[in-house]
Amino acid sequence: MINYPLKRSLMHTKSVSASNRGMDLEAAINETNEYYISNDIAYIYKKPIPIQVVKVDYERRSAARISEAYYKIPSTTDYNGIYKGKYIDFEAKETKTKTAFPMKNIHEHQVNHLENIIKHGGIGFVIVAFTALDKIFLMEAHYIVDFYKRSENGRKSISYAEFVTFGHEIKEGYVKRIDYLKIIDQLYFQL
Amino acid sequence: MINYPLKRSLMHTKSVSASNRGMDLEAAINETNEYYISNDIAYIYKKPIPIQVVKVDYERRSAARISEAYYKIPSTTDYNGIYKGKYIDFEAKETKTKTAFPMKNIHEHQVNHLENIIKHGGIGFVIVAFTALDKIFLMEAHYIVDFYKRSENGRKSISYAEFVTFGHEIKEGYVKRIDYLKIIDQLYFQL
Repeated sequence: MINYPLKRSLMHTKSVSASNRGMDLEAAINETNEYYISNDIAYIYKKPIPIQVVKVDYERRSAARISEAYYKIPSTTDYNGIYKGKYIDFEAKETKTKTAFPMKNIHEHQVNHLENIIKHGGIGFVIVAFTALDKIFLMEAHYIVDFYKRSENGRKSISYAEFVTFGHEIKEGYVKRIDYLKIIDQLYFQL
Repeated sequence: MINYPLKRSLMHTKSVSASNRGMDLEAAINETNEYYISNDIAYIYKKPIPIQVVKVDYERRSAARISEAYYKIPSTTDYNGIYKGKYIDFEAKETKTKTAFPMKNIHEHQVNHLENIIKHGGIGFVIVAFTALDKIFLMEAHYIVDFYKRSENGRKSISYAEFVTFGHEIKEGYVKRIDYLKIIDQLYFQL
């Protein structure tokens, strides 16, 4: 049971650019996934948030009311699904820092989860939005695993420069807002 | 928001057989999945139950306490993961009836979900336990979709005989309690 950070409904970034239409990474990804689904491109969806239910009231006949519950530390990632027959799995994170992504934003269980995805032939990655810089990167799971291991004895974050070097920038678009499958195509399905 | 049936922690069946060690389908599947994971056979896990959070209290600094929430109608299935590089997705259901599985146990969204799984090249199915008969069947998603469509204008259930004909019985075991991947091997990975 942890103090789970609630998602803000709107991001307030200082820079104002044409592409920055009130960036909320989760909303933008959900919108993109809906586009993928309705155009039969992929079937990728958000998992429910894990909640530990402690007490349920049955006062009303129509609905059980949960009166005590707590957010649990997520053991998996936010999104998964299928693309071109392959298992897709990823986590999406925003950071306000301009220089690095703090590793504490990703839990150990999630890193283990991504390792399992790779081991069994799935495609895993993390999408990180540097909101203050208006930049979004996709970084493959094996790098995340490596950086997580580094953080146990060394640097506790992934620098922005490392995202530039090892990650892949996703340009925000209008129809497909966060077209991460374009990167996945380049990485895994190039002819 | 619906009156979500709570899982009983133990099933009380009338017959007592060697294999019926307090059958709880969910617990048996979780145990099997743990076996698959720890033996590097597959990575398949249970999704969180979807809950609609209405009110959160921040009285204590250490933990946000959810004080009002409701179970949502599930839009996806209970389990998913990867096996031999393929996307695996299924729902598990128990029924006490001896003659048929009532179609109302599966929601329309879940049927759409299974249709999407098939469409994008994943492996989808339903595991149904007839607890009074001590029988467990795996039925592939395309049959579930067909029977669901039939239920809109005709019979509102899948008969036990149809499980025998179109499904695949899973014998409960000791180490791998509900070894559903054995059936998946026969159906999708036969040499």
